[in-house]
Amino acid sequence: MTAIDFAAFVDELATVSGETILPFFRTSLTVDNKKPGGFDPVTAADRAAENAMRALIRRTFPGHGIVGEEYGNERTDAEYVWALDPIDGTKSFINGMPTWGTLIGLLRLGEPVFGMMHQPFMRERFSGDGGAAHYRGPGGKRDLRVRPCAAIEDALLQTTSPLLMNEADRAAFRRVEQNVKLSRYGGDCYAYCMLACGHIDLVIETELKPHDILPLIPIITGAGGIVTSWDNGSPHAGGRVVAAGDKRVHRAALEILNRKNQ
Amino acid sequence: MTAIDFAAFVDELATVSGETILPFFRTSLTVDNKKPGGFDPVTAADRAAENAMRALIRRTFPGHGIVGEEYGNERTDAEYVWALDPIDGTKSFINGMPTWGTLIGLLRLGEPVFGMMHQPFMRERFSGDGGAAHYRGPGGKRDLRVRPCAAIEDALLQTTSPLLMNEADRAAFRRVEQNVKLSRYGGDCYAYCMLACGHIDLVIETELKPHDILPLIPIITGAGGIVTSWDNGSPHAGGRVVAAGDKRVHRAALEILNRKNQ
Repeated sequence: MTAIDFAAFVDELATVSGETILPFFRTSLTVDNKKPGGFDPVTAADRAAENAMRALIRRTFPGHGIVGEEYGNERTDAEYVWALDPIDGTKSFINGMPTWGTLIGLLRLGEPVFGMMHQPFMRERFSGDGGAAHYRGPGGKRDLRVRPCAAIEDALLQTTSPLLMNEADRAAFRRVEQNVKLSRYGGDCYAYCMLACGHIDLVIETELKPHDILPLIPIITGAGGIVTSWDNGSPHAGGRVVAAGDKRVHRAALEILNRKNQ
Repeated sequence: MTAIDFAAFVDELATVSGETILPFFRTSLTVDNKKPGGFDPVTAADRAAENAMRALIRRTFPGHGIVGEEYGNERTDAEYVWALDPIDGTKSFINGMPTWGTLIGLLRLGEPVFGMMHQPFMRERFSGDGGAAHYRGPGGKRDLRVRPCAAIEDALLQTTSPLLMNEADRAAFRRVEQNVKLSRYGGDCYAYCMLACGHIDLVIETELKPHDILPLIPIITGAGGIVTSWDNGSPHAGGRVVAAGDKRVHRAALEILNRKNQ
């Protein structure tokens, strides 16, 4: 069984999670704080959607493992492991902004082989398997392809918020920011999908959890892009991540990020 | 003729502009730079939509004035003057992000009496006349109402980007940011509408043009919110603007913004 056989099942997971989440969007929510003193909202929608997806996975593929945002890990030594983030961009969700999404990833022997970002409010699905990437939405279907960008000076950069970075990382990010054509904030998972669509050239973030990035990797690479850690290693563990549509921009961004303080 | 009679006509303007803009969204665009060295994209969509709206206004109300982003002012001494911004959030538009909108405002004797923010990709319309405000979208229709927020420490703050502010304004903004519960970036006109919906409590921006804010004023005030300049004056001219859902948060934000440097 190859990864591509799972595409229809991922669509089913996306439909189930979207139907679970959408009634909660732009309504009064009970917001819990995971970290005392911090603002890391977990909504009832987040939990309900992860429960619904976990139940469907267990029922359909009882031998598969699951790594989820809300309910932890199970059977992570299985051949196939699902990475779930029901609401990536919970702060956007709370603010009523539509730029959040449901992340569903499938790993085989530790490698992300299929991923989807589903935005149920806008009815958009971005998916990829590392070899190709696709979009379905109100405007129809199409293949996703990154765009060429020869120099970092021409690049459009996006990050969710510099406020999410520690001081040292923020200083390194600011150096990149000073070298690009335009830097914009906001977006969470949506920004990586705009990179896969060829609208932006560079996404730089920190403090990511594995489930924040794993489902996006096959979309980014399927569209012809590149995604690594800041030290040019595997991005699978999350943390500090650089995604680019063009490897020349990727190389330039890594060089600037890793420059010693000037 | 009272302002409310114009509601159906504003819907028509929104439909015409949306049909004009949408085919350009997420396609290759010719991006001009208005300012040499700056990045202030003007798209073909922006111009075509303003032309379409101007033509419809001239045909229907030949005596009305128009203030537009792309094609300047005409008959600004007329009793009724339209304020048009076909794509508020051009940078989001260019980046493929959906959080831009078409702003259509109507002034009578210089006072904004009706406004609409139309997001054609998501098929959402936010409108207001200073006395009430309404939403139509995929989830149906509803009245807009700001939410109470007693203290700035509980407030969710949004701004498009601190990078758009000059250094002194950014320092003042940072002081507010340190006092709120959560600060988020991005959104342009969309953020003010989320305030009118009661999802966020505070929007602080600078460098606004009159057409960036005039159409939003009747939506914000119609939903029960307040919007002024940073010195608590009229926001009609744009510039530095503070919008809040609760006047207690508005007052606290003004106090912090106008504090002498600490």
